[in-house]
Formats: sequence, C-alpha cells, structure tokens
Amino acid sequence: MNTFGVKLRLTTFGESHGEGIGGVIDGLPSGIKIDLEFIQNELNKRKPGSKFGTSRKESDTIEILSGVFDGFSTGTPIGLLIKNENQKSKDYDNIKDLFRPGHADFTYMQKFGIRDYRGGGRSSARESAIRVAGGALAQIFLNEFNISVESGIYGIGKNYGDLMKADFEFAKKSEIFSLFPNLEAEFKKEILNARNSHDSVGGSVLTIIRNPPVGLGEVLYDKFDARIGAAMMGINAVKAVEIGLGVNSSKTKGSFNNDEINKKGFISNNSGGILGGITNGDDVVIKTHFKPTPSIFLPQNTIDKFGNEVRCELRGRHDPCVAVRGSVVATAMARLIVADMMLLNASSKLENLKKIYI
Amino acid sequence: MNTFGVKLRLTTFGESHGEGIGGVIDGLPSGIKIDLEFIQNELNKRKPGSKFGTSRKESDTIEILSGVFDGFSTGTPIGLLIKNENQKSKDYDNIKDLFRPGHADFTYMQKFGIRDYRGGGRSSARESAIRVAGGALAQIFLNEFNISVESGIYGIGKNYGDLMKADFEFAKKSEIFSLFPNLEAEFKKEILNARNSHDSVGGSVLTIIRNPPVGLGEVLYDKFDARIGAAMMGINAVKAVEIGLGVNSSKTKGSFNNDEINKKGFISNNSGGILGGITNGDDVVIKTHFKPTPSIFLPQNTIDKFGNEVRCELRGRHDPCVAVRGSVVATAMARLIVADMMLLNASSKLENLKKIYI
Amino acid sequence: MNTFGVKLRLTTFGESHGEGIGGVIDGLPSGIKIDLEFIQNELNKRKPGSKFGTSRKESDTIEILSGVFDGFSTGTPIGLLIKNENQKSKDYDNIKDLFRPGHADFTYMQKFGIRDYRGGGRSSARESAIRVAGGALAQIFLNEFNISVESGIYGIGKNYGDLMKADFEFAKKSEIFSLFPNLEAEFKKEILNARNSHDSVGGSVLTIIRNPPVGLGEVLYDKFDARIGAAMMGINAVKAVEIGLGVNSSKTKGSFNNDEINKKGFISNNSGGILGGITNGDDVVIKTHFKPTPSIFLPQNTIDKFGNEVRCELRGRHDPCVAVRGSVVATAMARLIVADMMLLNASSKLENLKKIYI
Amino acid sequence: MNTFGVKLRLTTFGESHGEGIGGVIDGLPSGIKIDLEFIQNELNKRKPGSKFGTSRKESDTIEILSGVFDGFSTGTPIGLLIKNENQKSKDYDNIKDLFRPGHADFTYMQKFGIRDYRGGGRSSARESAIRVAGGALAQIFLNEFNISVESGIYGIGKNYGDLMKADFEFAKKSEIFSLFPNLEAEFKKEILNARNSHDSVGGSVLTIIRNPPVGLGEVLYDKFDARIGAAMMGINAVKAVEIGLGVNSSKTKGSFNNDEINKKGFISNNSGGILGGITNGDDVVIKTHFKPTPSIFLPQNTIDKFGNEVRCELRGRHDPCVAVRGSVVATAMARLIVADMMLLNASSKLENLKKIYI
Repeated sequence: MNTFGVKLRLTTFGESHGEGIGGVIDGLPSGIKIDLEFIQNELNKRKPGSKFGTSRKESDTIEILSGVFDGFSTGTPIGLLIKNENQKSKDYDNIKDLFRPGHADFTYMQKFGIRDYRGGGRSSARESAIRVAGGALAQIFLNEFNISVESGIYGIGKNYGDLMKADFEFAKKSEIFSLFPNLEAEFKKEILNARNSHDSVGGSVLTIIRNPPVGLGEVLYDKFDARIGAAMMGINAVKAVEIGLGVNSSKTKGSFNNDEINKKGFISNNSGGILGGITNGDDVVIKTHFKPTPSIFLPQNTIDKFGNEVRCELRGRHDPCVAVRGSVVATAMARLIVADMMLLNASSKLENLKKIYI
Repeated sequence: MNTFGVKLRLTTFGESHGEGIGGVIDGLPSGIKIDLEFIQNELNKRKPGSKFGTSRKESDTIEILSGVFDGFSTGTPIGLLIKNENQKSKDYDNIKDLFRPGHADFTYMQKFGIRDYRGGGRSSARESAIRVAGGALAQIFLNEFNISVESGIYGIGKNYGDLMKADFEFAKKSEIFSLFPNLEAEFKKEILNARNSHDSVGGSVLTIIRNPPVGLGEVLYDKFDARIGAAMMGINAVKAVEIGLGVNSSKTKGSFNNDEINKKGFISNNSGGILGGITNGDDVVIKTHFKPTPSIFLPQNTIDKFGNEVRCELRGRHDPCVAVRGSVVATAMARLIVADMMLLNASSKLENLKKIYI
Repeated sequence: MNTFGVKLRLTTFGESHGEGIGGVIDGLPSGIKIDLEFIQNELNKRKPGSKFGTSRKESDTIEILSGVFDGFSTGTPIGLLIKNENQKSKDYDNIKDLFRPGHADFTYMQKFGIRDYRGGGRSSARESAIRVAGGALAQIFLNEFNISVESGIYGIGKNYGDLMKADFEFAKKSEIFSLFPNLEAEFKKEILNARNSHDSVGGSVLTIIRNPPVGLGEVLYDKFDARIGAAMMGINAVKAVEIGLGVNSSKTKGSFNNDEINKKGFISNNSGGILGGITNGDDVVIKTHFKPTPSIFLPQNTIDKFGNEVRCELRGRHDPCVAVRGSVVATAMARLIVADMMLLNASSKLENLKKIYI
Repeated sequence: MNTFGVKLRLTTFGESHGEGIGGVIDGLPSGIKIDLEFIQNELNKRKPGSKFGTSRKESDTIEILSGVFDGFSTGTPIGLLIKNENQKSKDYDNIKDLFRPGHADFTYMQKFGIRDYRGGGRSSARESAIRVAGGALAQIFLNEFNISVESGIYGIGKNYGDLMKADFEFAKKSEIFSLFPNLEAEFKKEILNARNSHDSVGGSVLTIIRNPPVGLGEVLYDKFDARIGAAMMGINAVKAVEIGLGVNSSKTKGSFNNDEINKKGFISNNSGGILGGITNGDDVVIKTHFKPTPSIFLPQNTIDKFGNEVRCELRGRHDPCVAVRGSVVATAMARLIVADMMLLNASSKLENLKKIYI
C-alpha cells in the first residue's frame, strides 16, 4: 500500500496541501553515520523553484524524528517529516468538483468516494520528496560499499541524445540534469516553449547503478528487474521502463544481444547488468519515460462529479516537464532498491550466515 | 521471493529437469465453479511442441491437489502439480561447468554457490506453465465479472504491425499468436530464419485487459501500473514494459497526451486505462518486449566456473522466439493482477464493507 | 518489523526521549467520520501521571498530519505524531553503559551494537501511545458495525477476581481499571506496597471483543487467535496469553470443554469465541499476563557493556504495575486486529465480491 | 494466509481426505546438505497409529519435488508432498450437514459458504505433517549452528510435573513424549481413560530452544516472543501460550522476576530467554496448552446447516489427547521461527553486511 521495499522499507504519508509529508524508513542497519546535510542536498535537487519547474516555493527542510543516536543509525525506524509551507489551496477552488484530464482526480473519486482536491492531495508528486529523503538514507548505506546511482535527462520532446555519450558529470551541474552538453539548450527550449504555449512536454531519463554487488534479486517473483519495473512505473507520470537495450533488444538476434564473457567479465552490457533477474555485477542501466505533466493551462473538456460536461481551466503552479525533477526521484528509487536487495540477499547462502553467526 | 500477489497469491516451485513444477494458489474466493478443462486448454497454448517453439514434448497435464470440493473453490489453497516427462538432462552435461551467455547461469552460481544446470534449473521458462495455470484460475474468477485478458504478437525482429489494427480473434487461431493476418507470414519467416541460422530473434507482445473495474490499484506503492511493471519485467527475457502510449508519450505535449472526458467517458485512451496508478475503467493496454532467446546454437565465448575462457556450444531444444509462448504468460500475469487487485480494493470504502457486514 | 497488521497497517517510530513518537495508519477505508476528541480521550486513559503510574508528565497530544479531509478519512495514510515534552534524560546518565536487569538494554546492544539508553529508547513502553491512537482509529471504524472492545484488570500480584463477575462498567471509572468493585482496594494496596518498597508487581488483564462478525481469521497461518497471540505477547512485559478457558482448557475433558450448539447459538463459550482460528460470533475472550515492571529502585547485580560486574541503581520515573496502563494497550491491539481481519475477510467469498463489483 | 514466516517461508496446501497435503519451503539458504532420512524420522514421530493416537494408518512418506540438487539445497523453493492413503471419507457422511461442537465446521461454513466436511477438510490437524517436514528442514539448517529444539508433555488432564525436572532424554523414548519417568504411567492412564469413556483430554507441552543466537527478534511488531505467540496459538487446539515464568510472572514482584546478570551471564531465566522481544542467548522456554480433542464419541447437541437442532454422534478415528502429537508440531514451529529470525537478523548491523559484501 503506502510502503515500498521488503527489508528496507519506506512508508510515506501526506498530501500536497496538508500539514506536511512524512514517512518512516524501517530496516536500515545500525551503525551507519547519518549525514543530514547530504540528505538535505539531495532534497534540494528535487525542490521546486526554478523556471524549468513549478514556481511553488518550498524549503523542503527535512526533520529526522527518531532512529538516529549520537549521529549513527540505531537499527530502529527513522521518522521523517517535511512541513508544507507554501500551499495556495485557493488555486484549486474552481476544480474541486471536476476531474482534470490526465490526473488521478477521477480514479481517486471512484475508488474512495472522496478526495482532497487541493493540489491533487495524495496523488501529487509532492510526496516524492520523502522518496528522495529515503533514497538519500539508502545512499549513505551504499556509500559504505562504493555503490552509486546517477540519473539524467537524455530526451525531451523529440530531441534524444546518444546514450553512449551520456555525461553524468555535466548532468550534475545542469539546471535540468541534461546528460548532453550539446543538447542542453535544445532541451531547455522545448521546456520553455511548452510553458509559454501553456502546455507541457514529456521526457526520458537514464539511470545508472554503478558497482552493484553481484547476486542481487530474489528468485522468482522479486527479481531485481521486476523491482525496477515496479518502482519506476510507480513514479508519477512514468509510462514505460526499459532495462539495458530495452525495447530495442526485441528487434535483435540472440547472436547480437547475448553478452559474451571473458576472463575480465562481460564483453558487452546489452542486458543492462541483469541476468535471470539477478545483478551480474555490471552497471545496471535503466531508461524511464515520463509523459508530459497533465496540468496544462489550455482549456480542456471534462466532466464534473455530477456528470456534467464542463471546461477545465487550471490555475496553480506546475512543472512544464515533470521528467526533470522526476529524474531525482528515479535515482532515489534505485537507491532504495539496491539497499533493500542487499539486505534481502544477505541470507542467500549458508556461507554468509556462518560469517555472521559463527 | 517465489510468491506473486498480495491477497491472491501464487507460490511456485520446481525446476526444468526435476520431478515437476508446481505451486499453490492462495486467497481465491470460495464458491467459484472450477473448470479444469479451461485450465488445461490455457496450458496447452503455452505447451512446447510446435516448429516455432522448442521440440521438447511435455503433455503439461495439470493436477489439482486441494482446495476444490464438489467442483467449487472452498477458499482454501489450491495445490497445483505438473510432472516433468521429457527431460533430456544429458543434453546439458557439456555446459554444467560453464556459464551460457545471456542466461542466468552466472548469476545463480554467484548468488547461491550451487546451481542445477540441467535445462537452466529454476531459471528455466518452464516454470511459467504454473503461472499459466494460476492465471487460468484467476480468469475463471474474472469471468464472473465479464473481465477478459488477451495477448498477441505485434512485432518480431524488425517487423511491427499497426496496434490500431490488432486483431485478437485472428491471434487466437494463429500458431504464433500473430495480431495481424497480413504479417503472420513475415513473422513466421523471421522465426524460421533465426532457427535455420542457429540463432534466435526477439519479439513484442500486446496485452489488453478488457472491462476492468474502475478503482483498481493501491496507493501509493502498489499501483496498478507498478504491479504490471513488476509482473511483466519479471517474465523471462522481458527487457521493457510500456503502458498506453508508453515510450511515445514522452515525446508528446500534454495537450495531445491528456485524455479528455465527456459524458460517455474518456474520449481517448493514451493513458492505457490507468490514471494515478488506478484503473479508470477503460481497457488497460500493455506492451511487453522480449529479448531473443539466449539459447542459440552458434558458438559463443564464455568462461567456466573455474574462470577459464571456453567456447560454449549448446545442445538441447529451444524456442527460437521466446516472445511467442511468452505472450501466453503475459496474459496469465495480467489475469493474476486484476484478480488480486479486485480483492485488495474490496475494502477501500466504508460503503463496501457495509455491504458485506451489515 | 515496525508495522502491525496486513490490510489495516500501523507503522510506528520514535523513542522515549527523542523528538516524539509517531506512526502511520494505512488502509483505513475512506468515508469514516474521524472523531479527534475520541482519539485524544483514549490516549488520556494511557497517559502517564497518576500515583499508580509513572510521574512523568506528558500531555500526549495527538496530531493528525494527513489522510483526513473535511472530517472524513480519505483512504490515504493517516500520519500521527505525539511530541515528547517531559524527557529527563539526565536520569539515565548513570545507566548508559550498563544493562538493567529485566530490560531490553542487553539485547538491543547485542543486536544493533548501539543503543539509545535514554528511557529505554525504542524499547520503552512510551511507543504504545501510538498503538492506542491507532486502536482508537480502528474503533471509530468498528463503531459503524456496533463492535466494541473492553479491557480491565482482574488480578494484581496474588489477588485474582472471578472472571464471571467482571464488571466493565466499574472498570471504566476505576483509576486502575479494576474489574471488581470489591477488589479495587486490594489491587491498589498491592501497587502502592510495591512502589513503597521500591519494587514493582505483575498483573493480569481481561479483554473482551463484543459482537465480532463471524468468519474473521485467515486460514491457516493468520488465524484470529494466532494474531491475538502475537499482538498480546508483543506488548511490553507480557509473558502469557490465553483465549477462552485458556490454560484451564488443558485440564478438562472434551465432553466438558466443547461448546454445544442450539438454535439460539453456542450454549457455552469455553472456546472464547474462536473455532479453528475463526471467530464464531460469540464474544472473544482474552487473558493477558504482565510481568512486574523491570524498573525497580532496589539495587541489582548486572554488568556493563565492557563486561564488568556492577551494581544497578535506577533513577527515573516508572510504573509500579505496568499491567494497568497495559490494559489500554491490549484494547488497542484487539481493535486493530478486528478491523484488519474484517478488511481481510471482505474478499473471502465470491458472493461478497459480487456485492461490490456488480 | 497459508504462509508462515517472512524470510524462510512455509506455504502449505491440502485437506485431510483430498489427494494429499503439501507445501513449499522458500528462502532456505543454499549449500545445506539435505538429510531426507532425518525429515522422514521427524514425520514418523507425528505419524498416526499408536493406541494413544488415532488409528488412521498413514505412512506419511515425504517427497521432495524441487530445490535440492546433488544432495544440497540450491536456494530455490523446496516442494513437499505427502499423499493421503487411508482416507475413510464414509465415516463422515453422517456429519456432512451438521456442525461438530468444538470443531471449525461452523466457522468455515460461515466464512466460505462451503466446506469439505471429510475429516475436517483443511481444518484437520493432518496439515501439521507438512509443518513437521518444514520444521525438519529448518532443523537441518540449525544443526550447522548447534541449535536444537525439544518438546515434551508435562501435563495431561490434572497431572502436572515439575518443570525443573523435565527429562527430555526420557521424552524421546516415551511413546507419549512424557517429560517425567514417574508420571508417564499416570499420563497414559488419563489418555486411555478418556478414550475408554469415549471422551478426550487436554494436555500441556514444554518446548525448549537450546543455544539460540542472541539478538533474534525484529523490533517492534515481529518480536521473537510475538512470533512464538502466533505460531503456538495457531496450532490446532492450542488455547494458551506462556514464555518463561509465563502466567506466574504476573504474580511476582520485580525484585524476584528480574534476571540479574554477572560475568557468566544471566543468573536466572525467568524471562524464558527473551528480553524486549529479542533473544538474550539463554534457552527459550515455551509452554503451550492444548484443549481436549473436540472429536468425542459421546452424543452432543448441535445444529445442522439448515438450523435444525440435532444430535451429533461421531464415527471416525481420533486422538484422545491431541497434545501428544501436538508436541511434535510445537517443535516444528519453534524450529521454523529460529531459522527465519536468523535470516531476518542477518542484516541488522552494518558490520554484518560488511562481512558479506566486502
């Protein structure tokens, strides 16, 4: 339900225009030095405020309420809270009875018979701030093992870069996390064009897990790639997920697609680092595709909750391209998965357990 | 681990060359008339034996060991068993110490320190027969609500059909589940070419869930689309999953991609029937991309478990295009998801519980 | 881990002397009118402050951070927070390196290698305030079905009352939740004697679930009584749980113990309302036995974390009889179980699902 | 539902008079030498056939269908099957429409609207044979760490032995697992008296987990004692569970009940080896109380499924004292718990994970 993960679990709560958003990280091993500044920095990457994102101003200041003592994790659950500061719920008065196209308004109303219409309530991407905080905690754990996760934008609208040339160092400095120096201006133009025409635009994100342990992924219904499939598809606005060659692998022959092996390891990485649902030690390569933000300022046809046909004219503050901030969330989800799968895999062999108990 | 689903759960066991494969369906509501013939027919669709698949001969006869009384489900777990009949384990003697490229040999060995090398052991797609049986049981439940699930092949190698013209009635009769009468011959040629050149080829599957209830999908980490992402990516050889417009939605503008609504419902279905992770009542549209079967008969470079570089020359019997039988598995997984999500959603509203308890 | 329940789930966090304690209730159906005053009143019953409990002063004011809109549950997770106000962490400076007998100090240190020694940290019974808040939310749901749960004290030290004469109306008004008017003074004397001799005393609690629906409990490893066994044994200081005749049933013959049935229902209730792990509609009768509070002010032998033998002399503020406030927690756990099991049972029969989906 | 455990999971299926009973053990680490003879021997202890048990004759021959290769566990699920051989379903024809007092007939009918009346169907204690097989697999794992679990009978009817004198070596040889040489004859007499008077009798079981690792038990809702509470209460006919001093601890003072500590460890073991829900390394001591077998041959009042008052006169073959064979099941459940909790605890500390991944 509102919990992600099996052994390392993130449970979240909160709505866009309520008191705040928060969560609980459960299962983080004890003895990890918790770097609050790192967590806040990660949140700042997702934080609203640039001209390429929503103009809502939120400091997104994270509070850690429990589970840390003398600067170290204690093995007990870590309570997380971010208070909402800049709600403008009045912006939503005119849509409280109608269903915005492309949004969850209709489905929440059908499922629950009631909905918090202010800013999308629970269905708002604002909740993803807590995912980012949880992912940052996972990363602090992964740092102990030299594992890292990076994401960036490789396509906006109809402009796509060559994945082989993705430059993650550049992406870190790019306002829109562009993976390509030469395409950044194009990407920005696409976003601003969409904004200026009161519209929005889709985009695609590349995520790399570097130096993952070999052997992660639980047979046969909690495979590493299945978990990636669930986590990425579950991010707001994502409509497709690929691993390794992805869609293109279906257009190849086995003699091309198979990654041969020599003494140094796998010669190619078409598999995206996963064989039989288990990491093979190579980088895990994930592509995630975001639809355009459903909130646009052009008039649209819809119905209200009484069934009347009405025109929907949105106010409020919205990202013209949700993929940009979505890339930060993709990183967070991948971090949570790697950490969780490491904990799950710890008991896979008798040999491992002997190291611990004997 | 080896369990799929939350309220309707399929747990499976078994290896390609062991005693058999089996499983347990738990949580199926009581009072459903169980049609064993239907289950067997579904299994027959996936059954090996045609010239477009492996030549291994298995009758795949399903035994129901429990949970059914006087022809009806009792609400208790349903034990399932298919005995293996046509193992030729000798075919695998020459690969017992080496890691076949594209297979799970390497990762299972790393994870567990031991592996059943005969036919891939647990990692073999043979396990999917039990998924098909479980999916058939789910379908019997779905029949009570006029919900159906269909899959077919829409692309093999570089030939892709127009999804708007997908003909599921034709697919039912097609030996390779082709969705297009005019492309069936092309598709077959691609497969036979691959086989004749000792190679294999990828393919793409379209799955439609027709007439799903509105409101399925649990906020916020067990969304309907997240579940689809996990289930489809978890099928052997799948490397990409799309919902609705999928990858292409990332290349559109919001004004195009949003599905407007009028009194009759959604005017378009770019969302693939899911908004905010919850079904909106329209058909759920899923695309799943399969890599080429990793078992090919061309020599390949690999290493053995001692780290020596060796040539891998496979024997055995394999599907030249795993997507064909994979489409039957995709249907099964979608059936299991819809049924599970219906059970989970039953308690979403106080109103529903009053219907049951008052 | 830190989550209780399957479909209605309470996840908690927080330590005795940290920022506060909190939690998330997930899965509560939408459309329930949330009575915040009732929740606070339930918390007040458990609140520290009387001469029969600890003298720590906490207002235990509950904040609801999400999941409620216009006074009704929305079906989304309900964030709960109680800030700590009256920590006196200095009281614990002298025990930070030693293991208090009867406490979790030793085991937390062994398990995690680090512990928050202030007031027992996570292992403190203070966490149970959130259980009470969660239980109150469950009760608000149960009110819709006229189901109630009550607990009271039926034994302190060596004084035990006759269960047949348990007076729950009296218990409501009793400062120590005594079920017997004639024994209340004895019970109080036992508690004050223990306190005055710097010691503590055990006690026993009777809990009744009135008017439960028939059919609750999931075969075969999530039976209603198994869930009770886990929940009650998991309350701090509980060492035994009985259902119905409990221990005494093992001393009877079948001809006595079996509850015969006539047209009006079960003639007796030795089973405590549960047959085959499933509620039969009669009152569920639970007995829970609490050990004496391990915190006593008499000197005790123990070791410190370096292995040195030391004398343990406690300061701080403690309940002389943890069973008294524990009875409020027992009620909360029973409420959570009944509500969860009602949600789980909603999909047991095809007939139920037809009421919802057709 | 029909799954026990979190990381080591036993899923079972099957009815008393169906094809057989079976299950799946999932999560057993790879690399364990599987001793099939040991498993069969454990099953033989529970097997029906002595004059103190039911006269139903079942060989209870276990088949392992998967998950073992070259004699070692592979880390993949182990399929288990025991075929039923000696069903006499005709014995149940006369009770097919009525509800036997003390049995689950009424509650299954209410919950599911249908029931397999033959031998109690799914609610029969026959299912526990698979628990015993699962427990034996867990024990094979525990043997690697010198952990053992033993159970025996310490009370039948009104005769109770002194727990301090429990003789587990004697119990192993006793036909009724009596823990006391001097009471065995009394216990047998109680059982035969019950049988001869067409009645049944209750009994109490002592279970000891020897040499458990310190640190087992997950805070805060999957404590070791909570798990014991659930598992033991979930065994057919169990109505009470105690840990350590149990019920009696509620009658003591803290100064008596607390276990003081010196350099050698805990000086006493009133806690039964568990503090704060976590094992402290001392023996875990569990008492489990079984009601008399509900199947008795004396006429009883009941109703049929149409609501008519009828006399219930049972035929069939039944244990006069279910505690005897129940003690074997208690051992099995404790084994499963220790193994599962060891796997879960493996990732509690960063230090443990470094041993595995660095």
